[in-house]
Amino acid sequence: MPNLDKPDFSKLKALYINCTLKKSPAQSHTAGLMEVSRHIMEAEGVATELLRLVDYDIAPGVQPDMTKEDDSIKKDDWPEVYKKVKAADILVIGTPIWLGERSSVATQLVERLYAMSAKQNEKGQYVYYGKVGGCIITGNEDGIKHCAMGLLYAMQHIGYSTPPQADCGWIGEVGPGPSYLDEKANALDNSFTNRNTTFMTYNLLHLAKLLKENGGYSTYGNSVKEWEDGERWEFKQVNK
Amino acid sequence: MPNLDKPDFSKLKALYINCTLKKSPAQSHTAGLMEVSRHIMEAEGVATELLRLVDYDIAPGVQPDMTKEDDSIKKDDWPEVYKKVKAADILVIGTPIWLGERSSVATQLVERLYAMSAKQNEKGQYVYYGKVGGCIITGNEDGIKHCAMGLLYAMQHIGYSTPPQADCGWIGEVGPGPSYLDEKANALDNSFTNRNTTFMTYNLLHLAKLLKENGGYSTYGNSVKEWEDGERWEFKQVNK
Amino acid sequence: MPNLDKPDFSKLKALYINCTLKKSPAQSHTAGLMEVSRHIMEAEGVATELLRLVDYDIAPGVQPDMTKEDDSIKKDDWPEVYKKVKAADILVIGTPIWLGERSSVATQLVERLYAMSAKQNEKGQYVYYGKVGGCIITGNEDGIKHCAMGLLYAMQHIGYSTPPQADCGWIGEVGPGPSYLDEKANALDNSFTNRNTTFMTYNLLHLAKLLKENGGYSTYGNSVKEWEDGERWEFKQVNK
Amino acid sequence: MPNLDKPDFSKLKALYINCTLKKSPAQSHTAGLMEVSRHIMEAEGVATELLRLVDYDIAPGVQPDMTKEDDSIKKDDWPEVYKKVKAADILVIGTPIWLGERSSVATQLVERLYAMSAKQNEKGQYVYYGKVGGCIITGNEDGIKHCAMGLLYAMQHIGYSTPPQADCGWIGEVGPGPSYLDEKANALDNSFTNRNTTFMTYNLLHLAKLLKENGGYSTYGNSVKEWEDGERWEFKQVNK
Repeated sequence: MPNLDKPDFSKLKALYINCTLKKSPAQSHTAGLMEVSRHIMEAEGVATELLRLVDYDIAPGVQPDMTKEDDSIKKDDWPEVYKKVKAADILVIGTPIWLGERSSVATQLVERLYAMSAKQNEKGQYVYYGKVGGCIITGNEDGIKHCAMGLLYAMQHIGYSTPPQADCGWIGEVGPGPSYLDEKANALDNSFTNRNTTFMTYNLLHLAKLLKENGGYSTYGNSVKEWEDGERWEFKQVNK
Repeated sequence: MPNLDKPDFSKLKALYINCTLKKSPAQSHTAGLMEVSRHIMEAEGVATELLRLVDYDIAPGVQPDMTKEDDSIKKDDWPEVYKKVKAADILVIGTPIWLGERSSVATQLVERLYAMSAKQNEKGQYVYYGKVGGCIITGNEDGIKHCAMGLLYAMQHIGYSTPPQADCGWIGEVGPGPSYLDEKANALDNSFTNRNTTFMTYNLLHLAKLLKENGGYSTYGNSVKEWEDGERWEFKQVNK
Repeated sequence: MPNLDKPDFSKLKALYINCTLKKSPAQSHTAGLMEVSRHIMEAEGVATELLRLVDYDIAPGVQPDMTKEDDSIKKDDWPEVYKKVKAADILVIGTPIWLGERSSVATQLVERLYAMSAKQNEKGQYVYYGKVGGCIITGNEDGIKHCAMGLLYAMQHIGYSTPPQADCGWIGEVGPGPSYLDEKANALDNSFTNRNTTFMTYNLLHLAKLLKENGGYSTYGNSVKEWEDGERWEFKQVNK
Repeated sequence: MPNLDKPDFSKLKALYINCTLKKSPAQSHTAGLMEVSRHIMEAEGVATELLRLVDYDIAPGVQPDMTKEDDSIKKDDWPEVYKKVKAADILVIGTPIWLGERSSVATQLVERLYAMSAKQNEKGQYVYYGKVGGCIITGNEDGIKHCAMGLLYAMQHIGYSTPPQADCGWIGEVGPGPSYLDEKANALDNSFTNRNTTFMTYNLLHLAKLLKENGGYSTYGNSVKEWEDGERWEFKQVNK
């Protein structure tokens, strides 16, 4: 039976940022699972890019361009990466798990995304409004949900929207063991991981499409500029 | 200037669940801030209800009705509360912070919401699909973001969608001190809290309206039933 | 070869509190792993007790005895449980994982432990000084470390000491699956879990013994009473 | 009155690692509070050092020396920093809070500490056994406890011991605002922060002294080497 209601996602763009600690071309298990999600998007006509943040020179700090803040910092590739983030309707952050936490590279990504959050779009809203975000987590033992909590929280806090089940991942049984792409892990056929990766990917597409077609969020009730100008909509301090 | 583009939210329903440890009618600081958000919704024509979960007899466990699982459990009000959750387009969970964490009542709420997550809607999706969620956190010192991470994560994981900036709260300076409604806290005029509460409330409304008017999420790519029937859409294991 | 340096732990007492959501006598997988640790202690001559908090009527709240705070609360078994906590040199908290988090019962335990933290011992220190704590986590998929972070943090924050590797647990591969005691899980022979449970147990014993034999912590530098009396030891605000 | 029971801490060494994102000599608020703790140690005769990890070239990865793992990595200062970690009886990690989380530099520190955790001391125990750890957190709004949970967890997991109240910090009221050293914050006289910093510092000293004088932990029950050789002490799988 043909999918008569197959939506047209071809106007969407998605950026996958892999926060592995390993520079290209070393094998990244996280990239393995990210490619599963990315394949779905590509097959649905979405323009995608996958990059490893560790391949770039990202300076420490929480300003848009750190070379302008500190003379000792000679290079900062963040503005280049940010251009890709800004152009994408969908951001998917991938990270390995180390000691139960997302990688330091993932935390640095959040710091730099956050550094731009004071910027406003043309409507006076935070700049990430109208975009959607998800995350992909891999490790060999424990911590998908904990890592996802922090990443999804950060994204929604700066303006991304989150569809249902916007996280997915793979881990093995407790203790050290094989990783996602290792044959011994037998992870590629894990139905739970495959299903969650699929659902996440499609839900990101559905919500991104819906928001894009509706021009993002109305400014009614969430414009920084209007709030600063004194507009309060129906806000009232009812406790006094 | 009139708000010419003021949206019509009057078809929406919102449920506020306060997870304070204090039974009615004791003063709840969390309720204080929840009422600020609720007032906005009411003024926008939304039908709302605010309840305290601790006023109900909620049995421990992760099944829909615990009286059917354990003969020693004589009463379980969860099915009654769940009816309200099911009827609402928007769920806002409020919690105090104790030792940096959400209350045990909030965790019990998540356990019971989760207990229903195996249920599917008429489309074969998880039952909370199409609904939106947010959270309100109060304490006297530290932990809004940590509590919000866990609550928003749980909600999206079981099917809720999250708009931008779906959390808000109030805490004072580090260390013990006055709480939200205490005059000494001077919290009622905190512009950061008021603005975030307002933005959260309106963003919940915008996304709930958008999803409701579009009939929730398309089943293309996220139907449990279809996955179990063998449908894979564009999923493909690209690593082999 | 005999263990010539086998320490004598026979003066120690340990309390295991299982925070399962299931009342006795239902099977608790968490109890299963807790019994492994407890067996070691018993075999080393330690007096132990294992209880399920859900078998008691613990009232919501953060005061020592909630029946004295709220007339509508007729029963509160916390004072009875607290007596056991106070008498024990070692506290081991066990919890299942639900949606990546410790159980609501575990959170309630922390709330009630915290409720007593304003009390001081005869030296003017917080009442849990000199005791040691650890935790045991079981689930079928993900979250040992996240749950352990919160539990160990709470314990140290109110006065417990933490030896190395004070957490242990068992989870299976990502996704729903068998639990610790289920034969299909094949968890009982997991060497990683068995080793960590053993190391945790012995480290709790070593540190508890060391602290007990030294009379707990010296009051030099940590007495609430002396701080309130104006003593500052070598504290100096060096930033002005 | 003279402190007749003033302990002699002069044989101890402490290392303070500041995980600020700002390179020297930029002002670090976190350093400000760390210096308060460090002053106490110095005044008690402890040999201390405070460094900023961001002043070093620390390579991404989880191996002891990344230049030996990846030819594209030309420099890795971690071995130099690790020497200081190894020589110190006490490790205090300081971090700012960004979006409710510890800094990416702090996460990188944990990754590299963890990279050495497979090493064993001369007794066949993990290499950090016998050392003690604490943490100092500063921000302008929210997240001390959440950051402390992760840092203290990581330290105990790899072998550090944690005394009571091993975390301290300063944050202001919710929302953006002045930082610790800013005069407007009025943070320097915050009694809660000063007391917690003092108690943490002395408790680290007490426990480090106790462990050092006792030669760290007995190997009875926690030696990786003996476990691998088949020793099980009193471990027994009681569930079968």
